[in-house]
Amino acid sequence: MKLVVYNTLTRQKEEFKSINGNHVGMYVCGPTVYGYPHLGHAKSYVCFDVIYRYLSYLGYKVKYVQNITDVGHLVGDIDEGEDKIERQAKLEQIDPVEIAYKYENIYFDAMASLNVLKPSISCRATGHIIEIIDMIKTLIEKEYAYVTEEGNVYYDIKKFKNYGQLSNRTLDETLSGERIEIASDKKSNEDFALWKKAENGHLMKWPSPWGLGYPGWHVECSVMSKKYLGETFDIHGGGMDNIFPHHECELAQSEAANGKKFVNYLIHNNLVTVNGQKMGKSLGNFITLSDLFKDFDPIVVRFFILLNHYRKPTDFNKESLEEAKKNYEKLTNSVNNLRSALKNIDDENKTDETVDKLKENFITAMSDDFNTGLAVSYLFEASRLINKELTEDKNITKLLALNNFITECAENILGLSFKTNKENSKEQELIEIINNIRNKYREEKNYEESDKIRDELNNLGISLNDRK
Amino acid sequence: MKLVVYNTLTRQKEEFKSINGNHVGMYVCGPTVYGYPHLGHAKSYVCFDVIYRYLSYLGYKVKYVQNITDVGHLVGDIDEGEDKIERQAKLEQIDPVEIAYKYENIYFDAMASLNVLKPSISCRATGHIIEIIDMIKTLIEKEYAYVTEEGNVYYDIKKFKNYGQLSNRTLDETLSGERIEIASDKKSNEDFALWKKAENGHLMKWPSPWGLGYPGWHVECSVMSKKYLGETFDIHGGGMDNIFPHHECELAQSEAANGKKFVNYLIHNNLVTVNGQKMGKSLGNFITLSDLFKDFDPIVVRFFILLNHYRKPTDFNKESLEEAKKNYEKLTNSVNNLRSALKNIDDENKTDETVDKLKENFITAMSDDFNTGLAVSYLFEASRLINKELTEDKNITKLLALNNFITECAENILGLSFKTNKENSKEQELIEIINNIRNKYREEKNYEESDKIRDELNNLGISLNDRK
Repeated sequence: MKLVVYNTLTRQKEEFKSINGNHVGMYVCGPTVYGYPHLGHAKSYVCFDVIYRYLSYLGYKVKYVQNITDVGHLVGDIDEGEDKIERQAKLEQIDPVEIAYKYENIYFDAMASLNVLKPSISCRATGHIIEIIDMIKTLIEKEYAYVTEEGNVYYDIKKFKNYGQLSNRTLDETLSGERIEIASDKKSNEDFALWKKAENGHLMKWPSPWGLGYPGWHVECSVMSKKYLGETFDIHGGGMDNIFPHHECELAQSEAANGKKFVNYLIHNNLVTVNGQKMGKSLGNFITLSDLFKDFDPIVVRFFILLNHYRKPTDFNKESLEEAKKNYEKLTNSVNNLRSALKNIDDENKTDETVDKLKENFITAMSDDFNTGLAVSYLFEASRLINKELTEDKNITKLLALNNFITECAENILGLSFKTNKENSKEQELIEIINNIRNKYREEKNYEESDKIRDELNNLGISLNDRK
Repeated sequence: MKLVVYNTLTRQKEEFKSINGNHVGMYVCGPTVYGYPHLGHAKSYVCFDVIYRYLSYLGYKVKYVQNITDVGHLVGDIDEGEDKIERQAKLEQIDPVEIAYKYENIYFDAMASLNVLKPSISCRATGHIIEIIDMIKTLIEKEYAYVTEEGNVYYDIKKFKNYGQLSNRTLDETLSGERIEIASDKKSNEDFALWKKAENGHLMKWPSPWGLGYPGWHVECSVMSKKYLGETFDIHGGGMDNIFPHHECELAQSEAANGKKFVNYLIHNNLVTVNGQKMGKSLGNFITLSDLFKDFDPIVVRFFILLNHYRKPTDFNKESLEEAKKNYEKLTNSVNNLRSALKNIDDENKTDETVDKLKENFITAMSDDFNTGLAVSYLFEASRLINKELTEDKNITKLLALNNFITECAENILGLSFKTNKENSKEQELIEIINNIRNKYREEKNYEESDKIRDELNNLGISLNDRK
């Protein structure tokens, strides 16, 4: 079956063809490590985790590179304002490198909670200053960039005729859409920084042919993707908010410096809203993952994100999350009941026609631009089949086939996990023992004892459904 | 109370005095990330974790820097052989940077299991090539280093009059003690590499004034400690096997380049043996932490390591580990019983004379060169006191004071954890409910039901001690 992906570059779905046989190079823009990860991070990295898992499932050996932006990302997102990490370092009164390392750890911990796999390579921008300087030198030599008297280096976007190919903006739109302050030493406002001179007091800085300074945000990704994946690679991903200016600038840099096509497929996930509104610190609806995880199990959050296609926005609201939680519990119960029933039975890779068809549908959905929303619907169909088999036909072959389907599609590909309940299974079995004793008392009409047991369980937060 | 530490530089215990008031800079040599962490890593990083925790307890704001050696550490540990990471990359057929990142993650996961805190900064050698080149340039300018026609740069140890100050070796000993192959372009065999030319096929390489190459192992630490802690800092730690050549060479580099004292206190932990023998891959007794953790809870391994002073060797043998496990279980039971008894009681920071004395003894032990072995003996004394109070006097003030002692000394300072059992507390309470029902049946001489319950629990791996 062919895999089809939506390519932001061409604005259409295309068949995916790798450059090097079963090897795929994928670069996804990682976080700027100066604060707590939020809903937007969850959406983006869960979606690309599924893409990574699905490509691996299809037999590709994926080299998944994700950067850590630990320098050069300025508060204004363009060339103005403080470096985000240095600003946070001043607030917390520690070294910028401590800030970056602290939030890098918090980021990866949150991702682990969401069952997001680590990339093959996580590379820090500060670890690639030599390579950055090299690329800037090349851009200057090829006259795509210019050095100013102040010691800054800018990319001269008028020189790159394809500027705007990704975001579909003309230069005029670019100009009018962005803030109008012009750095005094830029030729045109739309030019962007490749290297910035370190002002007095700036902590993160390195020697360069243009004096002590630090790299611009965009050039980091051009350099690291080239170093680890080559001049032309397969997939570049990120959030839609990265299309402009970040990825547009990467394209301009890489194609000008290397004289080659930058990347074959650009994939962008849509953004998140909170109760229908854009999320923002200034809007007062900014939600960090650690806050969200207080109310919802991270695996439910993952599941919730996958209910939507990655190219559709995800609205985080309590009702939808609660509903996802309920549905995920139903699915989890089916899976645990199934596995409990199959506990002592050897799985000899059984196949079953109905389940084969289900899996085919699942794969068809995933191969159509990673349509996780549709794919999840087949998990529910599996759940219904499981419940039916367990109570009615009890066909072991079919149950084994269903278990394989769950392992392969729900766990390996979608990265869902039913371990939470599996780990609690001892607790469940203890409750079961107590419940049986209680039912015995009730049959004997010994309500004193049965009520006492119910109350004791209630004290532990466990409520029983009385059997009829 | 003054803190006394054994300083390898002076070969004696000295009072610890920080350079900058309540700020302490500590650099500990981190792992070379090309393989699975083993017993030696556990010993070293648990010991320095306790030192880090104890300094923090004393009120110091510790900037704890630990490097990741991801380039330049050659198989021969001196200047011969392949780069350890490149060799592993060839074996696993992936990029050296993927190897480094993979084993960096495995290392930190193992450390997290051992309840080892992350350092303030974890810095990769490959991220500091510019700074490394800078220091090498300085050493060449000051004539401590020379460039060869082959494109290598060596440190000329005859030029540094204090060479041998740490390991107490004379040049002649150095020469006779090490392998005798002389790299053809070295002036003397004992000189060590600062920069190596990248031979054909070498993957990790950077441009430098001396051509494409990569840094030597020793210079990485001189550079990163300087970058994050300054030219002279408080504490440098590592395993005893690092004294020579690694730390001796660091000293020579840093003091020659900076013209200043390198570090005030050098602290080295002793090594591990397995059943009395040196551990080694060639000896067939090489034990990785993941293997060890199959048989022993990581927190028991941590506890076991702390039973010894860090400057004494630790022999890993099954009997000693089993004994440590038993003792740790006793301690854990006391703590859990204590906390269960205090469940609904507010802790108002109660003090008690006996417990104060216990804590004073604990702190005295820790302040005497981090004598964890002695400190742990006071935990056992606390455990006896807890058991006595719980069964006899039931003095709430004393129990609260004991709880504070456990939290502060056992958990915060020694990094022990009794959570394993706390997390299982719901399970424990369910077992308690079942046990009560069973005892009722036994009182009623209904042995059919009581035996049935016992068997059901046995099936779950839970055995009951029949109350008399």
